[in-house]
Amino acid sequence: MTLTLELQTVADAVAEIIRDVSLQPAFAPPQLRRAVLAYPLSGGKALRPALLAWSCRALGGLPPPALRAGAAVELYHTYTLVHDDVIDRDALRRGNPSAHELMEEEGRKEFGLNHGAAHYGISMAILAGDCQQSWAIALLATLPELGADPLVTLRLIHQLQRVVGPAIVEGEARDIQLPFLPVADVSDEAILHMMRTKTSALFSYCGWAGGLLAHGREDADVRALTEFGERAGTAFQLQDDVLGLVGSEEKLGKPVGNDLREGKRTLIVALAWTRADEAERTLLSTVLGNPDATSDEIAAATNLLRHLGAIDDIRAMAARYLREALHYLDSLPDNEGVRLLRELAETMVRREK
Amino acid sequence: MTLTLELQTVADAVAEIIRDVSLQPAFAPPQLRRAVLAYPLSGGKALRPALLAWSCRALGGLPPPALRAGAAVELYHTYTLVHDDVIDRDALRRGNPSAHELMEEEGRKEFGLNHGAAHYGISMAILAGDCQQSWAIALLATLPELGADPLVTLRLIHQLQRVVGPAIVEGEARDIQLPFLPVADVSDEAILHMMRTKTSALFSYCGWAGGLLAHGREDADVRALTEFGERAGTAFQLQDDVLGLVGSEEKLGKPVGNDLREGKRTLIVALAWTRADEAERTLLSTVLGNPDATSDEIAAATNLLRHLGAIDDIRAMAARYLREALHYLDSLPDNEGVRLLRELAETMVRREK
Repeated sequence: MTLTLELQTVADAVAEIIRDVSLQPAFAPPQLRRAVLAYPLSGGKALRPALLAWSCRALGGLPPPALRAGAAVELYHTYTLVHDDVIDRDALRRGNPSAHELMEEEGRKEFGLNHGAAHYGISMAILAGDCQQSWAIALLATLPELGADPLVTLRLIHQLQRVVGPAIVEGEARDIQLPFLPVADVSDEAILHMMRTKTSALFSYCGWAGGLLAHGREDADVRALTEFGERAGTAFQLQDDVLGLVGSEEKLGKPVGNDLREGKRTLIVALAWTRADEAERTLLSTVLGNPDATSDEIAAATNLLRHLGAIDDIRAMAARYLREALHYLDSLPDNEGVRLLRELAETMVRREK
Repeated sequence: MTLTLELQTVADAVAEIIRDVSLQPAFAPPQLRRAVLAYPLSGGKALRPALLAWSCRALGGLPPPALRAGAAVELYHTYTLVHDDVIDRDALRRGNPSAHELMEEEGRKEFGLNHGAAHYGISMAILAGDCQQSWAIALLATLPELGADPLVTLRLIHQLQRVVGPAIVEGEARDIQLPFLPVADVSDEAILHMMRTKTSALFSYCGWAGGLLAHGREDADVRALTEFGERAGTAFQLQDDVLGLVGSEEKLGKPVGNDLREGKRTLIVALAWTRADEAERTLLSTVLGNPDATSDEIAAATNLLRHLGAIDDIRAMAARYLREALHYLDSLPDNEGVRLLRELAETMVRREK
């Protein structure tokens, strides 16, 4: 309960920063502005900002720069979501039309587009994501206004743009490419590397950035928070893969089973494949990467994954990553920030959406 | 001749910075790396880096940080080109396949893609542009290594990401939208605003950034360089529109007349429209925004634009912007940097590619 309230406090603070016109670029034309603001104001869980803010708190840092940095990370995350939805052709995000779908619909209404509406939607979504990346960095660059050290601020920007951003993009590129390979040719290491770059890198950054804002240099405490964020991020992604198969569509705000239809390589599929017999592999092959797979076929494949123990084993793997994450917090002082980080990591794995 | 050599010196220095692995993110997978490096290493003219470096020189600043900032601006420019080519569906850039075409072809070869190759190409190009934006900012964040002041460095990053980046995106969004409106409904002001955001903003930034690196604060000299860059940028874009109609395909490295086929609203078309009679407007309408217009139809429309005096008048307009740009240099000391800026602006308007 306390965690829920504390998470809401962070989410509200982030929304306030994002709504603050004095910190916003002058987004125009109005359609683009709508696309840029759609995801950041759609009530995300603010897990990344919370991880950053509480990492800072764990080391005795001040909230204002950490919350603004958290808002920047949230914007950065939404830029990757907007582009990812274009790439994955996902029509829904958090229960609402994805950015390119929103723009496609506007193109029909405002410009009477017909045949060209889909390309217009994609074009505007590309530009909206570009703006979100820019805005995120612009926000970070203002941290000295809130007392952050200019050189620390430059390190935050440099690490995000030199290491983390390219890692996320690498993860997305591998996520695109892996489905083109035969299931048996994709190693667990390749899938884990994809998850770590695509997802864990940004969580890891949040632990590092929060710690750096507090201590001003990369010491053992900051490194512990970095490792904590990395492990918690991997646990989060493993749980995400599980929910993508057995979660509630209503809670997730998107169709279950899309990962299978898109042929996404997850550790669940890889594990099941090693355990499946010929007939079971054939069943998996009929849905994997088949955009026209029916819900009955998806349900049959999901049952098979469950039956082969792959879903339970990946849940257990998520739990192991969670324990590893929590272990890194043991070296830190026992305070409210650390306590919240523990609860946050547990929620990231136990969540249903 | 001196200008050509000096421009080549800047282009070489920029290429060296871009090739410097110690300054590059770890781009992976290899296909993405290829897409990220393709435009930056395709022998661009380095006009923007030169404008930045010589603006710094004009105010007595040191070359190393200005050249690295120039390389960052060039990378930033290529990010917008990669995404713009996806949006405009342009198949060629500087005589080579555009980034998404390059990736589409690789998708066919490496993954045996067929139907999905085009979407794969677009997806990888979106990610490549995202990486280029990140890399550009990462480079800027390293300027203090070369002696730049950390707070000045943060101002450079903030201005680029808060103001200039969103302006470029706005210009691109308007460039997409204007062709959906009737020609008579698009005012000259709307077209000029689109040009200023899409093109002039980054040239203006180069003048400002070079000046700021030299003087450390925004004084009258820095403001003069900012205005110089803005006017020179507009002159450049006007000339670009002219070359898009009457330039040499071989020199440009892309088909002439594509702007007409894409229905781009240029001041040339707007001016011709006000002077055209009904029959001439009908001729223009048959090619404007018609991707299937034949080269004969494009040639007829181009002759009409010439006959109506629109091409000559826009050339004259470019010359006026050039004079305005040069006027802003009059208040600066008469030195080598200023002399090079004068020649650069003249070349930007007199160029044939």
